[in-house]
Amino acid sequence: MHQLNAHLIQRGNALCLGLDLDPERIPAAYFRHANPLAALACDIVDATHDVVAAYKPNTAFFEQEGAKGWAGLEEVCRHIGTRAFLIVDAKRGDIGNTSARYARALFDGLGAHAITLAPYMGRDSVEPFLPPLPEAPAPGLGAGMGAFVLALTSNAGAADFQLLMVDGKPLYWRVLETVDAWNRSWAGHRLGAVVGATRPEDLASIRAAFPDLPLLIPGVGAQGGDLDAVRAALALGQGPALINVSRDILYGRDTVAEPEAVRQRALAYAQRLECR
Amino acid sequence: MHQLNAHLIQRGNALCLGLDLDPERIPAAYFRHANPLAALACDIVDATHDVVAAYKPNTAFFEQEGAKGWAGLEEVCRHIGTRAFLIVDAKRGDIGNTSARYARALFDGLGAHAITLAPYMGRDSVEPFLPPLPEAPAPGLGAGMGAFVLALTSNAGAADFQLLMVDGKPLYWRVLETVDAWNRSWAGHRLGAVVGATRPEDLASIRAAFPDLPLLIPGVGAQGGDLDAVRAALALGQGPALINVSRDILYGRDTVAEPEAVRQRALAYAQRLECR
Repeated sequence: MHQLNAHLIQRGNALCLGLDLDPERIPAAYFRHANPLAALACDIVDATHDVVAAYKPNTAFFEQEGAKGWAGLEEVCRHIGTRAFLIVDAKRGDIGNTSARYARALFDGLGAHAITLAPYMGRDSVEPFLPPLPEAPAPGLGAGMGAFVLALTSNAGAADFQLLMVDGKPLYWRVLETVDAWNRSWAGHRLGAVVGATRPEDLASIRAAFPDLPLLIPGVGAQGGDLDAVRAALALGQGPALINVSRDILYGRDTVAEPEAVRQRALAYAQRLECR
Repeated sequence: MHQLNAHLIQRGNALCLGLDLDPERIPAAYFRHANPLAALACDIVDATHDVVAAYKPNTAFFEQEGAKGWAGLEEVCRHIGTRAFLIVDAKRGDIGNTSARYARALFDGLGAHAITLAPYMGRDSVEPFLPPLPEAPAPGLGAGMGAFVLALTSNAGAADFQLLMVDGKPLYWRVLETVDAWNRSWAGHRLGAVVGATRPEDLASIRAAFPDLPLLIPGVGAQGGDLDAVRAALALGQGPALINVSRDILYGRDTVAEPEAVRQRALAYAQRLECR
């Protein structure tokens, strides 16, 4: 994901805004729209696209509204376009023939610059998401530039399997080693890893051991991750890192905040996440 | 999944037909329909619903066509209704708040009787798919009856992580032990496991060690799994098992076969998969 590094430097911060919009918490004014969820997301994009480095809509929040929801996701992704780095958080992964369909859905259909993947099914579940490398990657943002593979997630259940010991190291470490090795061979440095902010000490070891691996870091804010600890950990390497914040930027007391308020909160986070 | 056992006994066979319909291989006659993929899938259901025990549409094959594809998936699932056990093969799994959205999409939106899940994110990524247990489960088929968690998949990449040794046993074995333990505690026997047919000797050990765990077994036919070896392995336990066949039943030389031909091939498989 060479383009991600260039994009972050140009944008000047590492903030990824997670577009996890709860349909039950949409401000009343949006219900005059045919698709309230998509209309609100597009307004938030308009209010923040010059502030954030990336957006991360999660497919679940749209799928829960069925075909109408998926149409809304298409609308939001189109609306983001190349105004920011677009990660579609899908956590997919299936046998090769099926992963190729998901790649079509997420990259061709939604124009995602990158996606998230689950590692459990291994290499041939990841490969179809990385088409043959072009001789010279085009500058700027484009669909299908890479994928972030789940390594150490920010939830309590991470302990169930990710922390199991394999040859003296936790399983998530083996996932990181594997993704890093894939990057240096067939994947052409188009893979990154998802590492939760809720374990900053682990994040520091990860950044030190895999200094150039692109990282997507959820769990800051509502999930409890500490931003300064995350920043300190990331300073141990040079690879691109996106720090995702969702609920802490999006929500007011009861509903999603007005787009202008969302912008102000995004600005505050972006300033704390300045990068060289 | 008590209801699955009752359903299999009533139906008399363990055949699950995977509705993996390639949009590029749809017979030409279907292109007069507004949604050719859904129309073909519905015709196949009409031709086979009294033959098979279950259907397994995979979300990827529909998502690749975007919102129209999702609408087609809704149509197909509605068309199946309670005529067979409906497994939506989605391989989802996310933090709890997000998994709850997927549960809504798959159970409430599509009416899935069961779904497939990826285990990597652990217990709190699985829990939202199992609503609080009713005091007495209703007889017959209904939405949200359970989930099959990926354990040992049928692809080559299974070796990358699933076969890593944890405390002297492969990771997939730990997943099976965990799912089995969850079943006996909070999950109320509503979880099963996905175990590929491509490793019949492993399937035999699994069935012997977890005799009552519901199993979903893909990989027979085009993926190389041997049906008789699978049957012999399953005879070692009493738990319900569904054997999924997709391409070997669905496809003619170039395109998906005519529904009547699909029915004949499904019948042949169903006879080989009779269960008491």
